[in-house]
Order: sequence, then C-alpha cells, then structure tokens
Amino acid sequence: MNMAPNLPEPAYKRIVIAGGGFAGLRLARSLRNTAYQVVLLDKNNYHQFQPLLYQVATAGLEPSAIAFPFRKIFHHLKNIHFRYCEVMGINPAGKEVLTSIGNIPYDLLVLAMGVDTNYYGNENLLRHVLPMKSVSEALTLRNRLLQNYEQALISTSEDERESLMNIVVAGGGPTGVEISGTLAEMRKTVFPKDFPELSFNKMRIILLEGGPRLLNGMSERSGFKALQSLQKMGVEIRTNTLVHDFDGTRVTSADGQSFRTTTVIWAAGVTGKACPGLPAEVWTRQNRIRTDAYLRVTGLNDVFALGDIAAVGQHQAFAGHPQLAQPAIQQAALLASNLKRELKGRPWKAFRYRDPGSLATIGRHKAVAEFRLFRFNGPPAWLLWLFIHLMAIVGVKNRLFIFLNWLWAYVTYDQSLRLILKNKE
Amino acid sequence: MNMAPNLPEPAYKRIVIAGGGFAGLRLARSLRNTAYQVVLLDKNNYHQFQPLLYQVATAGLEPSAIAFPFRKIFHHLKNIHFRYCEVMGINPAGKEVLTSIGNIPYDLLVLAMGVDTNYYGNENLLRHVLPMKSVSEALTLRNRLLQNYEQALISTSEDERESLMNIVVAGGGPTGVEISGTLAEMRKTVFPKDFPELSFNKMRIILLEGGPRLLNGMSERSGFKALQSLQKMGVEIRTNTLVHDFDGTRVTSADGQSFRTTTVIWAAGVTGKACPGLPAEVWTRQNRIRTDAYLRVTGLNDVFALGDIAAVGQHQAFAGHPQLAQPAIQQAALLASNLKRELKGRPWKAFRYRDPGSLATIGRHKAVAEFRLFRFNGPPAWLLWLFIHLMAIVGVKNRLFIFLNWLWAYVTYDQSLRLILKNKE
Repeated sequence: MNMAPNLPEPAYKRIVIAGGGFAGLRLARSLRNTAYQVVLLDKNNYHQFQPLLYQVATAGLEPSAIAFPFRKIFHHLKNIHFRYCEVMGINPAGKEVLTSIGNIPYDLLVLAMGVDTNYYGNENLLRHVLPMKSVSEALTLRNRLLQNYEQALISTSEDERESLMNIVVAGGGPTGVEISGTLAEMRKTVFPKDFPELSFNKMRIILLEGGPRLLNGMSERSGFKALQSLQKMGVEIRTNTLVHDFDGTRVTSADGQSFRTTTVIWAAGVTGKACPGLPAEVWTRQNRIRTDAYLRVTGLNDVFALGDIAAVGQHQAFAGHPQLAQPAIQQAALLASNLKRELKGRPWKAFRYRDPGSLATIGRHKAVAEFRLFRFNGPPAWLLWLFIHLMAIVGVKNRLFIFLNWLWAYVTYDQSLRLILKNKE
Repeated sequence: MNMAPNLPEPAYKRIVIAGGGFAGLRLARSLRNTAYQVVLLDKNNYHQFQPLLYQVATAGLEPSAIAFPFRKIFHHLKNIHFRYCEVMGINPAGKEVLTSIGNIPYDLLVLAMGVDTNYYGNENLLRHVLPMKSVSEALTLRNRLLQNYEQALISTSEDERESLMNIVVAGGGPTGVEISGTLAEMRKTVFPKDFPELSFNKMRIILLEGGPRLLNGMSERSGFKALQSLQKMGVEIRTNTLVHDFDGTRVTSADGQSFRTTTVIWAAGVTGKACPGLPAEVWTRQNRIRTDAYLRVTGLNDVFALGDIAAVGQHQAFAGHPQLAQPAIQQAALLASNLKRELKGRPWKAFRYRDPGSLATIGRHKAVAEFRLFRFNGPPAWLLWLFIHLMAIVGVKNRLFIFLNWLWAYVTYDQSLRLILKNKE
C-alpha cells in the first residue's frame, strides 16, 4: 500500500501524543478547540479502561464496556486527529515520530505510551504465562480459563486435571488481589454449576507475592485486611515468594516451592515501553523516562512524558509516582493547562502530585479504602470502589451498561459472559 | 493430552446431538428431565442467534448479546451433558460419533450441524470474500470494515482509497438486504462523523443478486419494496448478476461487469456441512441429508437429521424446507415430542411444516412482513421484526441488553461498538 499520515498543515503548532491511555486521552481532550493541532497515535482504535480489565478476563464485562473508540470521543473536534499506528521510535533532532504509517513531524511531542508486562528477561515466562495489560490479553485469558475446564472434563489423567484446574496468580498488587478474589468467588458460585462433573473443592488458587505483604502501595493494615479476606475465601497466599520458572505445567519459586498448574496469571511487574531515539541517560532503572517538574524529558526542549512511562521529579533518586490512573490524569491536566497558559503568554506551573487516596476491591462486599484522614474497609469501601470506577468510565452508555452488568451479576451471582470466542484476522 | 469423552453410562438410552443451533438446542432443552441421556456436541461453547449476526458485523451488537454459553443454559439439568468438540464423522454400523475428543457411542444420533458458506468451488472467493455464518466471522468482518477506513485515510492513491471504501454485498436474501441497509445508514450517520477526513459521498454500496429479484423466499411485492427502499438509501442493486471472480481488489460478474473494492461480503449461498460415514445416497444435490417424515435419515434406523442440513420429505424431488430458524425449531419440537411419546408407548407423528410467515428488515422504520392472510411493510413491520427477534433471544439478560442497545442506537443514531479487537489464542 502507498501510504502517508495525510495530516493537514497545522495553523499554529502540532502536538503529537504517542499513546491514548489515561494521560494521552486526557491531554488530547483538554486541548480541544485550542490553537494547537493535536495528533493522537495509538496501536488500538480505542481507549481502554485498565482498572476493569480483570473483569473482562473473568467474564464479568464485555470488552466493549471498557473500550471506547477514539474517533467517537473526538466527534466534531476539528483540531484533533487520530491515527491508528504503531510508534516505532523518535528522531528528536529532526523533530519527527517514526511510525508504522510513516514519519510524522511535530512541534511538540508527548510520550504517553505507558508500560509493558515485565518478564524480567525470562523466556519461559514470556512464552507460558498470561499477562493482562490489554483488552486482547484479557480476552485470551478468558478463553484459556474456560478451555481449561473443558479440557479437564475430558482428561483421563488425575495429574493433568489438577494442573488444568489450578490457577497461580503472580503478583500481590491490586490486580493480583482483585483477580484472585474474583476467581475464588467463581469457584464457589459459577464453575460448579457450569461443570457439575468436575470437583471444584480440589481446585487451588495460589497467590504468589515476592515482597513481604499484599497491596504494597497501601498501608500495612489494608494489606493485612486483603490477606485475611482472601484467605477466608480459600486463596492460598505465599508472600516473600518470587516466581523462578514455569514450564507450562509447573511453577517453581526462588525458594524451591513448586505448584502444579497450566495457568499462571502474570501481574508481577511492568517496564516502560521502548522508545528508540531517546538519549540513553533519560531512562531510569525501571525503564521510565525522567522529566523535570514541567514534564519535559531531561535534556529535550520539545518532548514531554506523562503517565506510567514518566518519572517526574527534580531529584535523580526519585523513581517516579505510582503507576496508576491518578498521577497520569493529573500530569495530563497540568501539561494541558501549561500549554494553554503559553497561548496567553503566562508562565508555566510545576507538577505537584495530590494523592487522592487508594482503593482495592477483593470480592462481593469486600474492599479496602484509604484517604489522608481516614481508612475503612468492608461494604462501604466496596460501594465506594464501584461508584468511583463507574464515574471514571468514558461515555454515558458504557457507564449504564457496566452498572446494569454489575447489578445483574450481584443479584444472580453469575457473570454470564463465558464465551470461548476467537476471531481469525 | 490423554483424553476421552468421560461420559457416565446412560441408564436408558443415550441421544447424541451433533450441533447446538436452533434445532439441536431446542431438542436438548425439550428432552430435559426425561429418561434419555442427552449429549450435545458443538465446536463452540455457546449457542449463536444467527438472525442478528449482521448487527455484530456492523458494530451494533456485542458478540455476547447473541451468543449464549451452553453450560449456562443447562445449569441444574442432570440428564444433559455438553462436550466442546468438533464432529469429524460417524460410524453408523458401530453406532459411534467420531469427534476431536474421541469416539462417542450412541443409541440415537441427531445430525443438526447446519450449513457452511458455499463458495461454489472458487478458490479465489474462499480466500478473499468475507462470510458471515458465525460470531467469529462477524467479528472479523467488523474489524475489516473499520480497518479499511483507517487505511483509506492514510492512502496516497485515489484508486486504492476507492477500493477500500466501496463495499460489495453478494446475495440478495434477507442477510444481504439487512446488511446493505445497515451499511447505507452507517454511511449517512456514523462513518462521516468518525472519519471527517474522508468523503463518504464517494463510497459505493453494491448489492449483487444472481436471480431476478431480492428476497426470493418472500412474495414479489416484498422483494420490490425492499429494492425500492434500498435504492432510496443509495444502495446500487444489480439483479441477474452472478459473481464470477474476486482478486481482492476487483469483483467481476458473469456478464462482464466489474467493481473496484477490497470488501466483498458473501451472503450468496450455503451448503450442508460434510459428515463422512453417511451413505452417499442420503445427500441431496444441495448437500442436505434426506429424511423421512419422522426426520429419520433415509435407510438408517437410529440416525435423525434436523434443521438447515435436513431435507425432510417423502418425495425424492423435494429439496427441503427453507433454511431458517422456524423449520429447525418445529422439527426439533416434533422429534422431542415423538421421543417422549415413545417412552409412553405411543405412536410417532409425522412432520408437517406450518409456515408462520416471514419478515425482513431493511433499515430504520423499514421492513417487510408477510403472513398467510396479510402482508405489510414500513414502521409496523419494522416494530414487529424488532419484537419477534427480541422474544426469540435466549435469556432474559440478553433480551434486556439487546433492547437497551437498540433503544440507544435508535435515539443516538450511533452503534458505538466500533472496536478493532483482536485476540491472540
């Protein structure tokens, strides 16, 4: 195919945003109807609401409920252009982004590509574990879980059946806690009804965490509450247990433990997406891009970084803010406001993170919440979690449909989307 | 993997049903809580509601809205067993079905595998056209349509852009009419808003029909109404036009016409699924399996055929009932009732098709309906179409969600599910 980005010449300045996650999307929307020409690049044609990916993986929500097409978000916004492409690197000297649809010149560039799953260089893990960083990975996980039970049903070997039924979750952060809790509920309510010929009292759900406790980003008390709740639901939790290897049927830990399973859900770490062309010295040890307090990439005048991939801070020692939606959104809001201040000739403001508190859900009526002045758990935290996630979703229709889905699942104890669904192209 | 179907010994007789479409599912459900052991085989783990596939293909409905997991349908039904597998053939002498999970012995066998897309032996068509007989094919079509416009946007060649934007629909039956109408509406409402940089007044939608008129299964007047409505919506219709070939960028017809397009939606014919092991003489010229009035496959005592794949009738000359939901459902209901009569020692009844009338929708407020005593079109037919399809859907939740989706699309003129969504496994 003969192709080119086919963008109109900008009247004033062109801002290219690489990545339409929380940071990139917020920035683009905040710059609507300004003098800037905004070009958003993403390798998907939709924004994905990552905090609810685990519900797609466990058949609770449809992909479309948490994925919103960019073009629909940008209806009637004439200064915003979307291009469906892969970002391959940048050429800061020539002020160009290199993409799968050709080079795109920029006046200002914003790197908001986010992070990838980190397998810590282990080829076996890369090959065998199931990551959960995108809608398509979540769908793959859903298909795999359901297929495992279909296979367990026709297996003639007790060992094989055991490994098909057991699930190991690696990583005790919010994602690992949320998915273990959901699976424990499904083991109790949904699976035995779907597969009456299998014995789910033999199924093990094992949560492995490398550090000494769960929910490391929250207080010790919340981590302990989560541990207690999960244990009550029958999840086996091993802290201080690093995954060492996985051959597809057996996981081993660094301290010599071993678990029989075909399914390892990998929520054990992330690493910044690669971006060839950036000077080596801007990368932190966690593969994040170091910026100053104005979100400007160290040493580059017209390149910014936002969100999970950015380590925003004055000090070399600072590793960056938590890799969550809130810092990303606040950074995007600040950069948008600075860019608008520039149009009016006003000086820029520096970034300061306001921690709005954190929340994690564990299961029906179970969650932990903590804010500056108070913390709580149980049904109130669970309701708050539902409310905040619902309100954060893009689009009235998605909000309505997720609410109805949750209500339905709550009343019937049944998620109902258990399709093994494959497409070809 | 070591595997076997792992089925319990039946107390009385085992009925194996190959295929969980309208016929197979209805039969299985009607035999719940009887003395028979029912084993349903399907290569998907869900039943699909085919009449609405075209709405999945055009981003109007989620796959899950028209797909219902078998295991959920069979909750608490102890005499029904589902096995997720491919049927590879039968061995009538040994009374076994040959499947991808091993051989399954039967007392009675019911063939309800339905039909496949018919490419009439043309390798080019098989390779390039887009069929629409399953949820995954519909998703592939949706992805392709959306990707075409993303590509048209970055193309530097006018010819290429033209072929990416044009769509040819082959086949003027209900599916072809419904999808042409939906695409014509999207060309007017959704596409120009999503892709303001493309000129959709240049996009052509061409419907090719080999016969002399549209909706061949309905009256001439309904066919003419559909033609009129589609033409008013800007669909170009060529009757008496058989597709001859398609090389991926250009369609040619048997009478020498030629259309530039990358997208040919294939709704031009079906052929019965193969079933090695059946005697050659039971197949009709359309690859359907000939049965007697009791749905018994000619010459075989304990094998039945139902639905699209069956040609039920006394006379050699009869080609079979229309390949629609209604004959399939009526046949399944009759066979179930006969099998239950047998348990009570009563004689079997012969099949007689009661034509309940037919309906086809064309677009917003547009449809045609005909029944024995009257026929009508326009908004009343359209509302009836909506109501009947909604009521036929399995499951209260699916019904509610489809209703809300339709209501939303009706009010906003926007389907909103335009995700290019791929999974890996």
